[in-house]
Amino acid sequence: MNITARISVDGLGGDFAPQVVCEGTSLALQRDNALQVILTGPQDALDALAQSLPAEQRDRLLLHPTTEAITMGEHPANAVRTKKDSSLVVAARLVKEGEADGFFSAGSTGACLAAGTLIVGRIPGVMRPAIGVILPGVSPTVLLDTGANADVKPEYLVQFAQMGATYAQAVLEVEKPRIALLNIGEEDTKGSKLAQETFQLLSDATPGFIGNVEGRDLLTGAADVIVADGFTGNVTLKTLEGSSSFVLGQLKSALMSSTTSKLAALILKKQFADLKERLNPDRYGGAPLLGVSGLVCIGHGSSSAEAIAAGILTTAKAVRGQVVADIALQVAQAQEDRSRASQDAPEVSEA
Amino acid sequence: MNITARISVDGLGGDFAPQVVCEGTSLALQRDNALQVILTGPQDALDALAQSLPAEQRDRLLLHPTTEAITMGEHPANAVRTKKDSSLVVAARLVKEGEADGFFSAGSTGACLAAGTLIVGRIPGVMRPAIGVILPGVSPTVLLDTGANADVKPEYLVQFAQMGATYAQAVLEVEKPRIALLNIGEEDTKGSKLAQETFQLLSDATPGFIGNVEGRDLLTGAADVIVADGFTGNVTLKTLEGSSSFVLGQLKSALMSSTTSKLAALILKKQFADLKERLNPDRYGGAPLLGVSGLVCIGHGSSSAEAIAAGILTTAKAVRGQVVADIALQVAQAQEDRSRASQDAPEVSEA
Repeated sequence: MNITARISVDGLGGDFAPQVVCEGTSLALQRDNALQVILTGPQDALDALAQSLPAEQRDRLLLHPTTEAITMGEHPANAVRTKKDSSLVVAARLVKEGEADGFFSAGSTGACLAAGTLIVGRIPGVMRPAIGVILPGVSPTVLLDTGANADVKPEYLVQFAQMGATYAQAVLEVEKPRIALLNIGEEDTKGSKLAQETFQLLSDATPGFIGNVEGRDLLTGAADVIVADGFTGNVTLKTLEGSSSFVLGQLKSALMSSTTSKLAALILKKQFADLKERLNPDRYGGAPLLGVSGLVCIGHGSSSAEAIAAGILTTAKAVRGQVVADIALQVAQAQEDRSRASQDAPEVSEA
Repeated sequence: MNITARISVDGLGGDFAPQVVCEGTSLALQRDNALQVILTGPQDALDALAQSLPAEQRDRLLLHPTTEAITMGEHPANAVRTKKDSSLVVAARLVKEGEADGFFSAGSTGACLAAGTLIVGRIPGVMRPAIGVILPGVSPTVLLDTGANADVKPEYLVQFAQMGATYAQAVLEVEKPRIALLNIGEEDTKGSKLAQETFQLLSDATPGFIGNVEGRDLLTGAADVIVADGFTGNVTLKTLEGSSSFVLGQLKSALMSSTTSKLAALILKKQFADLKERLNPDRYGGAPLLGVSGLVCIGHGSSSAEAIAAGILTTAKAVRGQVVADIALQVAQAQEDRSRASQDAPEVSEA
């Protein structure tokens, strides 16, 4: 047994937990035979899963029964601080304690964020961790931040760019990621004060920076990494989701509008299924919180078993790509460069 | 002849001007027999159009030949200041001088904005004019600001809400528009500092405010008016455009993938055309700059003749709905309310 990634999975994360999380875990173990999953959650669900697995997979599943649950309505930081034996907190702690290399949960995004920063902890030198989402499109693109930081400074966005590039290298296997700033025009003088200052900093300091992109460029493969503040990034991501689902919904009702169209739709069944799959935002199943000292990956609350499996496998891929170590290295390097650039000035401090 | 709206049209606005603008003008005159168009642009194009029209329509077309053109690459404010005999500047001046009730151009958005603020001028009390776009969706929704103001204050957004509501009343014919704030969560504690402060102000002072909506709610008819800063609004609008066109493009290539699918697509031709029309962002043809002392309406550079016609007709509808007078009234009323609320404090000044 040659384990190359140990992922702790929050057995109660998601709208259909623990059932769907167990099914997703089973799929992931089946598809990746160098994967170990450490599953937290209610004893009976864990036992049932273990019993259902073939011996080889069961050997790669560790059970960590927990007694508490964090629900969607709770105040994230409070819940993480007080519910010490919740499936989410325990799964995060396993990463902190080195028992797991990465963490996956389809639970409350806020609670995952809180667990990432409060339990796993920031990488030294990282000003703000950011959530990176892989957008499906002509070619996949990492969009970050998609919601961890509603208010930011230009320096944060420069770090987001570096962290996003490291993630794209590991997971999208792009050697030299093209980095762009999400803005409201292509020229460098466009945008808010924040965007203009960020543009300047990125131009000065970030290899691979190709300039501004606009909202219409998100799915065209114009860049491998697109950087935004967490407010704009979150609105953008949800706009994409809403728009795809609206268009597909309209398409469906157009196809159901007459007997002939229903017949034609039947002929096109495979094509429509392919289309839906190409637009599927869950293909990667999870979005990492980049900048914390372990791989913390957050799935959609509505994740299916397939999405959970994809999320666990994406987490494992990021672990094997050494995303966390690379980010730590890059951040340290950038700090060194900055302090060398301003030798007489005091060393740049963390915000 | 009973003229109820006089619209000045920039004959050189748009990628396919003057040809397409003349065609669009002709369509608009044909469809609205209480409409007068005052067309600016090169003498020969104007003459050719006039000659092609039936007498009744020609009587409602005034020609205003101009000698200069503002192109997309020019610095907007400089171009507006120096090119006094450009089709765009003259069309805007006709509104300022009371010769026209409204202005429509599919030219450079920046130049239209500059013409709106520098030539037509702000309504007294309006802090910042904002661009409102009608999104097609389950039911149409006014999104504003979509790009006039990249950096804003909460007070601006409150005025955007009032102006958007007035526009929705006139053009969408919604009696009591439901107003929402574009944010990254539904709870009032969510979002950036700007969003939180705006939420508070809107809750206190704006009738019809229903709370936050998210990116995924833009097309679901969740609100009649959605308010955002011009940066977020612009990214959102372009994301919607990019996403729709990506999905339709993917659909098209799925349908072209085999002989059978091509045949089925042929059967579905009408349904697909309907779908495309329902998603057509040009159905209203133009976006008004709300808050200036005349109706200034901006079309897409790539507008077809149909889109130009729609833009002119939407401008006329807003003129007849007395959008400008109503905004002026509401702004004056809001100022009065504020100064009454803080009797001892000095009167609230314009920003």
